Amino acid sequence: MTDYDAIDQYLENHFLRSIDELCRLCALPSVSATGEGIEKCAHKVVEMLMKRGFAVELLETDGAPAVYAERKGRKDKTLIFYNHYDVQPAEPLELWVTSPYRPDIREGKVFARGVDDDKGPFVSRLFAIDAILDADGELPCNVKFLIEGEEETGSVHLRQLVEANREKLAADVCVWEGGGVNAQEEPVQYLGMRGICYVELSVETANQDIHSGLGGSIFHNAAWRLVWALNTLKNEDEEVLIPGFYDNVQPPSERDVVFMAALPDPAEEYKLRYVMEGFLKDIQGGTEMHIEQAFKPTCTICGLTGGYQGPGSKTVLPARASAKVDFRLVPDQTPQEVLEKLRAHLDTHGFTDVQIEFMGGEGPGCTDPGDPFVQLAIWMAEEVYGKPAQIIPMAGGSGPNSIFIELLDVPIVMAGVGYPDAQIHAPNENVRLDLYMKGARYITRILKEYAGT
Amino acid sequence: MTDYDAIDQYLENHFLRSIDELCRLCALPSVSATGEGIEKCAHKVVEMLMKRGFAVELLETDGAPAVYAERKGRKDKTLIFYNHYDVQPAEPLELWVTSPYRPDIREGKVFARGVDDDKGPFVSRLFAIDAILDADGELPCNVKFLIEGEEETGSVHLRQLVEANREKLAADVCVWEGGGVNAQEEPVQYLGMRGICYVELSVETANQDIHSGLGGSIFHNAAWRLVWALNTLKNEDEEVLIPGFYDNVQPPSERDVVFMAALPDPAEEYKLRYVMEGFLKDIQGGTEMHIEQAFKPTCTICGLTGGYQGPGSKTVLPARASAKVDFRLVPDQTPQEVLEKLRAHLDTHGFTDVQIEFMGGEGPGCTDPGDPFVQLAIWMAEEVYGKPAQIIPMAGGSGPNSIFIELLDVPIVMAGVGYPDAQIHAPNENVRLDLYMKGARYITRILKEYAGT
Repeated sequence: MTDYDAIDQYLENHFLRSIDELCRLCALPSVSATGEGIEKCAHKVVEMLMKRGFAVELLETDGAPAVYAERKGRKDKTLIFYNHYDVQPAEPLELWVTSPYRPDIREGKVFARGVDDDKGPFVSRLFAIDAILDADGELPCNVKFLIEGEEETGSVHLRQLVEANREKLAADVCVWEGGGVNAQEEPVQYLGMRGICYVELSVETANQDIHSGLGGSIFHNAAWRLVWALNTLKNEDEEVLIPGFYDNVQPPSERDVVFMAALPDPAEEYKLRYVMEGFLKDIQGGTEMHIEQAFKPTCTICGLTGGYQGPGSKTVLPARASAKVDFRLVPDQTPQEVLEKLRAHLDTHGFTDVQIEFMGGEGPGCTDPGDPFVQLAIWMAEEVYGKPAQIIPMAGGSGPNSIFIELLDVPIVMAGVGYPDAQIHAPNENVRLDLYMKGARYITRILKEYAGT
Repeated sequence: MTDYDAIDQYLENHFLRSIDELCRLCALPSVSATGEGIEKCAHKVVEMLMKRGFAVELLETDGAPAVYAERKGRKDKTLIFYNHYDVQPAEPLELWVTSPYRPDIREGKVFARGVDDDKGPFVSRLFAIDAILDADGELPCNVKFLIEGEEETGSVHLRQLVEANREKLAADVCVWEGGGVNAQEEPVQYLGMRGICYVELSVETANQDIHSGLGGSIFHNAAWRLVWALNTLKNEDEEVLIPGFYDNVQPPSERDVVFMAALPDPAEEYKLRYVMEGFLKDIQGGTEMHIEQAFKPTCTICGLTGGYQGPGSKTVLPARASAKVDFRLVPDQTPQEVLEKLRAHLDTHGFTDVQIEFMGGEGPGCTDPGDPFVQLAIWMAEEVYGKPAQIIPMAGGSGPNSIFIELLDVPIVMAGVGYPDAQIHAPNENVRLDLYMKGARYITRILKEYAGT
């Protein structure tokens, strides 16, 4: 291993400047669900990369633009970073201790919407690059960035974008967003993510809400239609009832189960953090919980809406009702397949009045744990975090890694700044300052050791 | 019959002044669901009655105060008017052509929240009283008013109020809010109303919304729990599945069916107005529709809420979900009975986690069509509207008339200013100017003919 003294010294000396840069980026809302601030944030990202000597391009899509950047390095090997600059909506705002777009530093953490998912990982990578450039005067290998603006709405244009720019994006290895440490402060290496198929189901039964005394016994009620339709999708035993839904599901391999069995039991931590007494299907925790969490497909209602939702009572028959539903997919399920089976299922049950709007999706994707780049990432994680890395063959979350695996043929490792209380997608999202520093150090090790410089 | 020339002349001459008074009252929001403007509106109502020489009292309740007023008349017989000064919430605001609390006169109508339900009926009664006082110098009999402020939230304190003020409120006959003409411009006499039991069902599964990728396969989802619980309440054939729900249901009498059969068929009008192709249970219209609409109890979802409801997608597992549900009740069902059976039903199905909040209710109530006061009201309606009145033994809507019937032992007739396009409980609520005038004339006839002066 190379000597990292100069690099680590740089990181120590310039830490607060990097945190300041992170706060400035987090102060810009960039909500892909609503479009708020997207363009301004993309231009800020362009500016940040240009400052580091990268050649930068805005790649336009039919939605939010992606930022592409590249800079040559000493060795002719190419590492590509995947990040996204968009964030989840900050609602419910009243649950934030400080305003989501006024980053606040307290208790050794930075609080802001998007600070962990995914602006912290991005800025810490730039910080690592600053340190290497300062110490070595050049990058150890070619480095590319693809920073998209639609990850939180299902990366709907990413496949098209990667397909159209396959040569430009070509790389040997890839470092994904995400990652960090678990509740035991052990570095975590996720090697796969479930896919997702996100839909909005909606029913309309009239042109306006109607007095429920007038219509309750004789008019179709959009909310009832929706409830009955949803009820056919999954039973109380958590079995998805769409015919053929499980046809292409591959069980975890024996090696996957071994990795899952080595993970700490998260059950008690979940109970405490979310104030819950137990779990679905009488799961107690341990390996069973890990396997359920990542290797089983799901059907989750993410939102329900219809009729009067204010305080007190209002006697109306809702004319329109809708549900946002996400299906998490495991190998070899595909979003397209789920969409087709869902439509057929609703039709079979007489719910031809239920409209399906596809709001984004991607297939599941995994990297082989035996890949040399994975081994290197695991080794470096132990070096930086002082504890052996935990290998998680599949994560419960989703991301468009399958597109990179399929179209760019790269092994993917994750490197981030997260931890279990980071509150991603929730109020009071935060990043720990110490993990932000470790995240940057980890990136310097991955870059230099991969290049072998 | 007395000579009504002087009275009718007064109504002609002072019509616009009364409309102006109506608009001023409608400009005051008085939303019982939120409490907005309730107190200010109550005081305005007090002032309006005092101006007519009534002795007025504010009767405090644990919720909104009721306004009580009385004025003696020539004959020692007492007629009590029931009205309410509260209104439904005006949302969705974007569907109003003009602002709900800026009354707008156009197309021969006044548009405002509450203008038909129930401020128009109230102000037109004052207008009728003004005309009688001007022509005769006194009222023909004793007149009382009870104007409550919680009708739109289920009149939760009215029973207690009437019980505590039984002597004060004692009367021989009662004129209720509501009423008007049907699509054929025939006056309508409603003799009964269904009861109501309004509840909010809610489920909480965690202390915060959680990333659906993390928890989809292992955590309880409040929205799913709610959907499954609701699904056990009613099936797609519109059968309420709560054991014992139908036990106390009395079928309509033969006379009720005869009255219902005499009513015009509303089916085509509903299809046009609400843009719907058909009705529940393959009902085509006619007598069958009228009987379903009023003599069958219902279970209606009025609102559904949970998780993310904004634009685009957000991958969360909702920690809380709730539904507003109203049950319309027919003789001899009671709200208390429904609450108890609902709780037992949910518990039996394992939904002990579903909380029930009772948000208001009252029993059904009917007046005997053979009562002399009913006959008088029917006769006077034909005189004023020029067409025979339609007798509707039971309306689909609800109101606290059962409390008056039970505690004050009065026959109740309805007299209002409504028509089918009045849009009550909906955007663009309105009153037709010609029907407002007829409503006032109708009240002068009822008062004088009842007193026999």
